[in-house]
Amino acid sequence: MQALWLEDNQTSLRDTPQPQRSNEALIKILKAGICSTDLELVKGYYPYTGILGHEFVGEVVEADNVSWVGQRVVGEINVSCHQCEQCLNGRPTHCENRNVLGIINRHGTFAEYTTLPIANLHQVPASVSDEKAVLTEPLAAALEIQQQVKFQPTDRVLLIGAGRLGQLIAQTLALTGCDLRVVARHKRQQELLQSRGIKIISEQDVQPWRWDIVVEATGGPGGFSLAKQAIRPRGTLVLKSTYNGGMNVNFSSIVVDEINIVGSRCGPFEPALRLMESNQVDPSVLIDAEYPLSDALKAFEHAGQNGVLKVLIES
Amino acid sequence: MQALWLEDNQTSLRDTPQPQRSNEALIKILKAGICSTDLELVKGYYPYTGILGHEFVGEVVEADNVSWVGQRVVGEINVSCHQCEQCLNGRPTHCENRNVLGIINRHGTFAEYTTLPIANLHQVPASVSDEKAVLTEPLAAALEIQQQVKFQPTDRVLLIGAGRLGQLIAQTLALTGCDLRVVARHKRQQELLQSRGIKIISEQDVQPWRWDIVVEATGGPGGFSLAKQAIRPRGTLVLKSTYNGGMNVNFSSIVVDEINIVGSRCGPFEPALRLMESNQVDPSVLIDAEYPLSDALKAFEHAGQNGVLKVLIES
Repeated sequence: MQALWLEDNQTSLRDTPQPQRSNEALIKILKAGICSTDLELVKGYYPYTGILGHEFVGEVVEADNVSWVGQRVVGEINVSCHQCEQCLNGRPTHCENRNVLGIINRHGTFAEYTTLPIANLHQVPASVSDEKAVLTEPLAAALEIQQQVKFQPTDRVLLIGAGRLGQLIAQTLALTGCDLRVVARHKRQQELLQSRGIKIISEQDVQPWRWDIVVEATGGPGGFSLAKQAIRPRGTLVLKSTYNGGMNVNFSSIVVDEINIVGSRCGPFEPALRLMESNQVDPSVLIDAEYPLSDALKAFEHAGQNGVLKVLIES
Repeated sequence: MQALWLEDNQTSLRDTPQPQRSNEALIKILKAGICSTDLELVKGYYPYTGILGHEFVGEVVEADNVSWVGQRVVGEINVSCHQCEQCLNGRPTHCENRNVLGIINRHGTFAEYTTLPIANLHQVPASVSDEKAVLTEPLAAALEIQQQVKFQPTDRVLLIGAGRLGQLIAQTLALTGCDLRVVARHKRQQELLQSRGIKIISEQDVQPWRWDIVVEATGGPGGFSLAKQAIRPRGTLVLKSTYNGGMNVNFSSIVVDEINIVGSRCGPFEPALRLMESNQVDPSVLIDAEYPLSDALKAFEHAGQNGVLKVLIES
């Protein structure tokens, strides 16, 4: 089958064997989304060799339990051992022996087929289109913030960054009733937010020391620095992006102001599907372009351009 | 009156006017304690000119409400405006207009007298000696950790640092029933902990990725780095010391492992007094030496020596 392969920071389109499903489900990929993590992996954020991609919607074509065959599914990306201390303490996404779809020791979804354990799969409700379902994984990651931090309707919340993940965070946080403002750099990002009635704020207008919760979704030192200035004493600063390399940070203000910093990664799929089924969020508005798998290299080039949101690859 | 004065990173013993109490209480200092913050202020951690010192036990000698006169008291160090957004939202220790005893815009306690608003004072129970009461402030700071973070009896807790504040944190955390281990560098620190049945652990024996809660109380990059290695996914890392200057930190592991970092500063006085009254904690075991105010410069020299715990100044 055709697949987008990463090796030594180089992507190429390859003809690879169809994956062996063993006791997992074999899934025909319908659509897959390019995420910032994919772009970072190409840049060498984490050493990975194999088929890239972890956001997808597909159809089960083979499974031990035949009731799954023919189902349209999305899949959680962390494959856990169910035996380590993290798994046994209810933290399977932090499994010490995990492999991660298209990221750690497991071929990903920019291909015609992939495999995943049945335990990782979720059926997609009929009313949720492929264009929405393909973005279940990043939408779940956005919802992880609310798994970790309580958002009160009276909270002043600042979201810094309105790219791929930032848009989904904005859509979900807007549902909490909190007083949300979003720092969005690009015109299109701003328009997407405003079309949903979500308020934007320019960086210069962000009052220092005033925000109950700040979500940093840029992954850059500028965003982190703004977040640190904006947060009020005893406020909560959510870090939603990984950072390339180290940052020089003075922690004294974090101690003196008793700030709470929360790192946030993968989230729950079922609520993400539920919010799409009820049309309360719509990730498909982020889609800029769709390419056939044979043009996956072009798709990557497109996704890497400044201000571009979501680029899909169709198998 | 005699007082220890800090100016341009130089301490000196001065003859200064007795403070004007205005509508505050005038307090005769009985004993005052030298804290790491005092030593850092001398090194220039924060620009301050005036009388140093913020840990004290004293006796009220003048007050508008005469029922306070003659009372033995300790005092909260943050003097708040009761009008700003922080005060009005129940965060008076974070008052935006605060001055802080011996730290920000308010003369401190290495002197014969000091003044504080009555609202800042707490009567010391008769059974609590001066040697204990003088350490109410750092004991309250230790208790602040439990105001912020829930300690479950099943939690594995690592405390890094067993100096002045670390010892008090160890004594209070040991009461929660959690499985506590303390990284203590000096023999005397270790013995003080062991005499209370608190278990120590060597740095090399700290298992990485295993501790539910880690309290970093060294204020150094080495302690922070060990804390970051030790904490388990979704664990809580409490920062209890300020850090001199910036640290280069890679935040990606904090995001990937969904770590919660909590800065922690001043804490509640009443529970500190209660725990001393009931003999559940005893900060006086930390006292290494006591100097008269006339020897305050010697006292500072002593307090700055490696491994020394508490040095008091008697007025």
